[in-house]
Amino acid sequence: MEKEQNTQMSFYYKDGYLYCEKLRVKDIQEQVSYSPFYLYSFAQLEQNYAAYQNALSGINAIIGYAVKANNNLTLLKRLNELGSGAVLVSGNELKLSLAAGFDLKRTILNGNGKTLEELSLAVEHEVLINIDSEFDLRHIQQTAKQLDIPANVLIRINPDVDPEVHPYVSTGMKNSKFGIRNERLNWFLDEIRKDDLLTLVGVHCHLGSTIKKVRIFRDATEIMLDFIRSIQAEGFSAQYLNIGGGLGIDYERTGEDIPTPKDLIDSIRGLLTDDITLIIEPGRSIIGNTAVFVNRVTGVKTNGNKHFIVTDGSMAELIRPSLYDTYQHIEFIEPVDGKVDTFDVVGPVCESADFLGKERELPTPPEGTGLVVCDAGAYCHTMSSNYNLKMSPPEYLVDGDKLTCIRRVETLDDYMRVFDV
Amino acid sequence: MEKEQNTQMSFYYKDGYLYCEKLRVKDIQEQVSYSPFYLYSFAQLEQNYAAYQNALSGINAIIGYAVKANNNLTLLKRLNELGSGAVLVSGNELKLSLAAGFDLKRTILNGNGKTLEELSLAVEHEVLINIDSEFDLRHIQQTAKQLDIPANVLIRINPDVDPEVHPYVSTGMKNSKFGIRNERLNWFLDEIRKDDLLTLVGVHCHLGSTIKKVRIFRDATEIMLDFIRSIQAEGFSAQYLNIGGGLGIDYERTGEDIPTPKDLIDSIRGLLTDDITLIIEPGRSIIGNTAVFVNRVTGVKTNGNKHFIVTDGSMAELIRPSLYDTYQHIEFIEPVDGKVDTFDVVGPVCESADFLGKERELPTPPEGTGLVVCDAGAYCHTMSSNYNLKMSPPEYLVDGDKLTCIRRVETLDDYMRVFDV
Repeated sequence: MEKEQNTQMSFYYKDGYLYCEKLRVKDIQEQVSYSPFYLYSFAQLEQNYAAYQNALSGINAIIGYAVKANNNLTLLKRLNELGSGAVLVSGNELKLSLAAGFDLKRTILNGNGKTLEELSLAVEHEVLINIDSEFDLRHIQQTAKQLDIPANVLIRINPDVDPEVHPYVSTGMKNSKFGIRNERLNWFLDEIRKDDLLTLVGVHCHLGSTIKKVRIFRDATEIMLDFIRSIQAEGFSAQYLNIGGGLGIDYERTGEDIPTPKDLIDSIRGLLTDDITLIIEPGRSIIGNTAVFVNRVTGVKTNGNKHFIVTDGSMAELIRPSLYDTYQHIEFIEPVDGKVDTFDVVGPVCESADFLGKERELPTPPEGTGLVVCDAGAYCHTMSSNYNLKMSPPEYLVDGDKLTCIRRVETLDDYMRVFDV
Repeated sequence: MEKEQNTQMSFYYKDGYLYCEKLRVKDIQEQVSYSPFYLYSFAQLEQNYAAYQNALSGINAIIGYAVKANNNLTLLKRLNELGSGAVLVSGNELKLSLAAGFDLKRTILNGNGKTLEELSLAVEHEVLINIDSEFDLRHIQQTAKQLDIPANVLIRINPDVDPEVHPYVSTGMKNSKFGIRNERLNWFLDEIRKDDLLTLVGVHCHLGSTIKKVRIFRDATEIMLDFIRSIQAEGFSAQYLNIGGGLGIDYERTGEDIPTPKDLIDSIRGLLTDDITLIIEPGRSIIGNTAVFVNRVTGVKTNGNKHFIVTDGSMAELIRPSLYDTYQHIEFIEPVDGKVDTFDVVGPVCESADFLGKERELPTPPEGTGLVVCDAGAYCHTMSSNYNLKMSPPEYLVDGDKLTCIRRVETLDDYMRVFDV
């Protein structure tokens, strides 16, 4: 979060205070009535999207933003305005994308367990559908037939390239719950060929998430191109090569060389031919570093040989560190000159799984100090829960010197509405 | 889930079908319009509460149900009617308990990060408050002073007895984020003595969760009684010994001998004297086995050497297996005579963290088969999220032959309401 970091210009420090674009985060915190909250930078979002757009210059391509990473309606609208497509994993994401204005013919529905209801929606709206398994194909056939509407499909293949990431976010190995058995490919081709309503338009893979080596994408692309060539040799005009998403971001801030979208695309550019339209499905690398999760320090305590900073945010609002044992950088938004110690940064939720960061070297903060968890744009708010009856936190967007609330805080009345039965 | 299991009579099989009290779960599934859903047995809840009540016979005691385990409003009302108190970990839980009719003077507020707003609510409503740290005491003092209302407080002490459970649910060791430093006890006593508005009424500990050995509770009780005696020797009339909750339940169903509430209380009964009022804080052992999470099988697939049953329920509705790598028993609600194989039971959410159970020996089910995750009453719905835009699932309660919806399904309109800003 230093100015020098080229990849994230929109959050920076001046005189010891964290800024988001032209606004001081401390001023925002004082203005916002609820704590904790998420704070996004629109300039950062534009920059990240442009990085993909520029990287793809000269290539037939669709950028399919992975809605599951963050489904804030305003952010979806802005991404649509920037020209993005959308990648969906549920019927509700389809409906939300419709509300955000996306052209659904440029969206893709993924998933290993799509329901018939979700497939109906997808077929009706002419969404590209990735076939994940034998039963998924049968369901798609059944749906198209019932609605008497043709469907454009891709086949999800596991290239079995190890993404070298946490097993929870590895999704393209041969033992994965996703994708078809490659040895059954010809069965799928025969089934599709026999079906008048289905058109095979391409292949899809998704290796996983938080990937840091472009070689992994290149290896997978080569394998997938072999598949596409053999499918074309079978008489299909499959044009789409969907290599999924999964590019990692610089959570650790250790100076590690994280590949950019340009690095990724350049690594595969030479493999692509004019008859191929590339689909990529970035989520984290578009939205991840656009946000910080802003907390207030409730207090500082010591037990045994451990020091704790207790914040008002918790695993309820941000579960990634706890669920994946993953690192997100933590900083204060204002000058703090207390004694430097090694702290666990923990929330108020009543279990030991509730931490935002472990063993962080930080100065001891006074109560009320603003503290941010960085890179909180992807898989943070979308995975939040009401555990301990914490409310879904609000979201704010900075655009230059303008602050807008883009999601109000959930209230207890909202929560209790479902009990009116 | 066999009839023989004395601890859970309310769910049983007859002619290959799962029943909840007098109703066949398959009939309920066909009647309920949404899938997946949670299904509770009121008889089981009554039985579990009675087990504590009977175990405590002859002892001055408060049963403080841990609302964080499950905060369904109807279930809270029923527990209140049965005579239960409530243990709270947030201001919203306090407000909900008020709505459920609990006498807040018999409730306790826990937590390592209570906010000033939450403490104000607690002081106003004369809730017993557990002091967790130096800063927490200061905040309680500040709040009582500001409101000019006296507060009854307990001190949370870490007895440093190893609960022998997953580190995420171990909460009473000396390096825990919870509780005071025992060596600072006299400082706390001095502070409370000096404060006209604070009355020290007892001590509190909470060892953790899913505990399976009563020896652990007995060891902690002995240590806590030593503390209470030395506090009384300092001139305080502290009467409450709050030993927290944490009794495990039989998730694994391997025939293991899980202690009952009677085993727990009998193990400490001899230690208690007439001047002591015992507070216990059961959550899981009251509500855990009262519910099943009811799914439909979307399909079955094989990849590499792995077989998968894909359900419509997921880590979004039930994250325990994924978060704690924990086991919950999985069964079909109807006769299934397919080939027996070893399956991972997975949901439709787009990551490999999404599983309900791993490596389960089950017959291959046809699509649409009903499948339940057992013991889903505690820390299941309360930890659910909207990940992949899955909606918060509905809850149904069986009482004899009567089925009642006690939480309607969340709708996309509900979800999108917070975007109206």
